[in-house]
Amino acid sequence: MRFDPATLKFDDKGLIPAIAQDEDGAVLMMAWMNVEAVAKTLSTRRVTYWSRSRQAFWIKGETSGHIQELIDLRVDCDRDCLLLIVRQTGPACHTNRRSCFYTSVISGDEVELMAPES
Amino acid sequence: MRFDPATLKFDDKGLIPAIAQDEDGAVLMMAWMNVEAVAKTLSTRRVTYWSRSRQAFWIKGETSGHIQELIDLRVDCDRDCLLLIVRQTGPACHTNRRSCFYTSVISGDEVELMAPES
Repeated sequence: MRFDPATLKFDDKGLIPAIAQDEDGAVLMMAWMNVEAVAKTLSTRRVTYWSRSRQAFWIKGETSGHIQELIDLRVDCDRDCLLLIVRQTGPACHTNRRSCFYTSVISGDEVELMAPES
Repeated sequence: MRFDPATLKFDDKGLIPAIAQDEDGAVLMMAWMNVEAVAKTLSTRRVTYWSRSRQAFWIKGETSGHIQELIDLRVDCDRDCLLLIVRQTGPACHTNRRSCFYTSVISGDEVELMAPES
């Protein structure tokens, strides 16, 4: 079956969550896409989100150089979430850490698992 | 710093997305939690979501037996998304597949990567 981004289930703001996972398995970040961002990501193979704060397309790495090359795009059973398998250049997080999920809750305390890259 | 679920950023419905990743690295599913579901998950170590369709707590696996034991709970840099590292019993997806992300978009076509478990 041909994939049509319009058949995804977007929320009441027209957005769908997209999880970026490095090809080695690390979960890097979660951000949002609208239907055009899904189409752009597939056609350019450069991951493009929709920035809710800026209300604009967000071509990941366009200013930082920390781009995400799309290896695979997966759709979940409910068609309301995407998993992007990516080849990440540099750190994915704006704090310069590899992943945005660098804080772990251990025995009720917040513990930082990763230092920023230099 | 002590972790307080109330310091997370919930959306306008009081929910936060939670990604479940198997301890071997496979991304299994994404669902939602409210502040009480986060607290219950941490205190019981059994992953508990908030079902948006049923408007009720959803103790994953309570009826199917396909439970998720919490290994680690991680918070992202914006505090608006959670990553749960879990030990999954049985398939995570209601279609009986290991992961909900079993559909891949390959050259514009939808391709199923996983068969249901028997």
